Amino acid sequence: MQAYLDNSATTPLCKEAKQWMLRAMQTDWGNPSSLHEKGFAAETLREQARKAVADALRCDPRCLTFTSGGTEANNLAVFGAAAAQKRKGSRVVVSAVEHPSVLQACKELASQGFDVVFLPTDRFGAVPVSALENAIDSRTILVSMMHVNNELGAIEPIEAVPAILKRKGAQALFHVDAVQSFGKMPVCPEKIGADLLTVSAHKIHGPKGAGALYVRRGVHLVPRTFGGEQENRLRPGTEPMIAIAGFGGAASVLQNGKGLDRITALRDRFTEKLQSLGEAAVLNSCKDASPYIINLSLPGRPSEVVLNFLSDMGICVSAGSACAKGHRSPVLAAAGISAERQNSALRISLSDQTTQEEMDYCFEGLCEAVRVIRNKL
Amino acid sequence: MQAYLDNSATTPLCKEAKQWMLRAMQTDWGNPSSLHEKGFAAETLREQARKAVADALRCDPRCLTFTSGGTEANNLAVFGAAAAQKRKGSRVVVSAVEHPSVLQACKELASQGFDVVFLPTDRFGAVPVSALENAIDSRTILVSMMHVNNELGAIEPIEAVPAILKRKGAQALFHVDAVQSFGKMPVCPEKIGADLLTVSAHKIHGPKGAGALYVRRGVHLVPRTFGGEQENRLRPGTEPMIAIAGFGGAASVLQNGKGLDRITALRDRFTEKLQSLGEAAVLNSCKDASPYIINLSLPGRPSEVVLNFLSDMGICVSAGSACAKGHRSPVLAAAGISAERQNSALRISLSDQTTQEEMDYCFEGLCEAVRVIRNKL
Repeated sequence: MQAYLDNSATTPLCKEAKQWMLRAMQTDWGNPSSLHEKGFAAETLREQARKAVADALRCDPRCLTFTSGGTEANNLAVFGAAAAQKRKGSRVVVSAVEHPSVLQACKELASQGFDVVFLPTDRFGAVPVSALENAIDSRTILVSMMHVNNELGAIEPIEAVPAILKRKGAQALFHVDAVQSFGKMPVCPEKIGADLLTVSAHKIHGPKGAGALYVRRGVHLVPRTFGGEQENRLRPGTEPMIAIAGFGGAASVLQNGKGLDRITALRDRFTEKLQSLGEAAVLNSCKDASPYIINLSLPGRPSEVVLNFLSDMGICVSAGSACAKGHRSPVLAAAGISAERQNSALRISLSDQTTQEEMDYCFEGLCEAVRVIRNKL
Repeated sequence: MQAYLDNSATTPLCKEAKQWMLRAMQTDWGNPSSLHEKGFAAETLREQARKAVADALRCDPRCLTFTSGGTEANNLAVFGAAAAQKRKGSRVVVSAVEHPSVLQACKELASQGFDVVFLPTDRFGAVPVSALENAIDSRTILVSMMHVNNELGAIEPIEAVPAILKRKGAQALFHVDAVQSFGKMPVCPEKIGADLLTVSAHKIHGPKGAGALYVRRGVHLVPRTFGGEQENRLRPGTEPMIAIAGFGGAASVLQNGKGLDRITALRDRFTEKLQSLGEAAVLNSCKDASPYIINLSLPGRPSEVVLNFLSDMGICVSAGSACAKGHRSPVLAAAGISAERQNSALRISLSDQTTQEEMDYCFEGLCEAVRVIRNKL
């Protein structure tokens, strides 16, 4: 028995992603900028992929700029918006629980003199709307907020942002990192009122190596990378065609929220069973969080020891973000979760391919871990 | 009959690249930062790929940072070196015929106040050593020079740079863009004396979407992108694993100069036959250039018209760099080649898979083009 429950770190490829990728590997392998038949075929494939991703986001394909992944898209959004907007003001507002690719980019902006406000969250990782209200002023040039937190699953109040910006008279750009929500719940940048929105292929059963930044028409960004004129002159370099093709294939079969009820039922059943472990297990995620992410702690049992134990049973979960390998989670710290719970945190993350059997086996594994691993307190 | 002779734009995948990629697609699809069996398997694959590329460069694998391609590696080298070295001086020396990812990055540095010198070239695109001597001073912090020019095939005098830097007492970093030479002639950063060196997968029958920057041990670069701690903290973001695997597969069977004699013979025979076209065809590349790139003009016959004509015959060549789609080549202009020859330029680029039959068919195509397409002069 195996249970892969680290889908927020990465997902296996779906059939359609593989099919589109094989097309890019075997027949349409040209450089899409080339002015001959091999180039035209590659260009067609790239545009089919762009349309598939745009359809999933219900947006105009021309608004999508392909990147090498979520990190590059987030960097382009943050630096590109700050550089384009710097004459209008210097305040940048982000949550303290953003993905490192937004958080570290904003720390770099702060070191350059931008007035960056890192918003506190409640103990489940959600930013209170009042914190947004207090931080956003008329000189705010950028608000960046993730849709779903990658460690706690908290759903952030992104829908409140456009109205606050309007009320405060801020000409800010609004960026949403939708990497963890895309495909799992409906994500439509126009409906959200986002100017910029990041999605990634490898969290939706596409390949690692492709992402996209939605840029609302009329919004100007300063490019972060220099070179050729590919991708609306925002992202130079020969396109990562095989990954882009796989992104298209994966997007073409996205459930876009249709799996939400089934996953919610899996999550609810799992968290109910968790209560049978008594004080040995404590849930860090909120009940209203995305059901695709369950964060819990086994206080006194260090995350790494439990991870190894579970891995030996064929159960793959994580201690937190894969990008923060081996470090204590800054997200849990920002949410005010105790050091003891931080050190024993586990993230169980689901995908639309997750089965009841996998969840049951994972629960068995947790029970075994609690029984076998000595409480180090 | 088909002839793909646009290998400097991109190449089809070799068998080994596909095999390694399928492994990353089917079995070892984890996130290499994940601390469980799926993560460890992906990490192993990534390190095997790194070793294969390092072996081809005869360097320590720990010196290689994987990127999403040559453009990202060149941007990291240029911006990373300039930021790390800015206290030592402000002069940056590059040739005027660098790839756009170096040239545009250096123009951005110039706009930030760096003292960037763009070196002139001879009429074949090669920088005279005397120009290097004149430009490099004790306050020079970065020299960036390509090994082989991507449009004309000129071999640049990179071997002269380290001695000049030493003589002038410059503490500069020396970056070599080896994208067009890697695998085609021996490339060893240690032997060259380069501190930084860029290679790309898709020019050596690997996939689009992976490149690497060699960074000599002890050399400090300031990262250009912010986020997780992947790739020596220089290139954050989940690794483009399938492309990296393909890079490893392609590098594992690189000829590394062993094909040079055969390709030189193909080039020489082709350029001899070209003389039979008399004044209708003129060679822009130098006889000493890399034999993998043959740049010629059919004066009076616009490049796009000839490209279309050849593409209809199944012959794929280019007018210049694929990255400069549809624009007149800045490389040919910098080399002082006349507007008439710029407008009618064709680049025929070979790979170790190129056959005599393809070259013969391409020559037939050129003869037909000269016969059929009216001289627009």
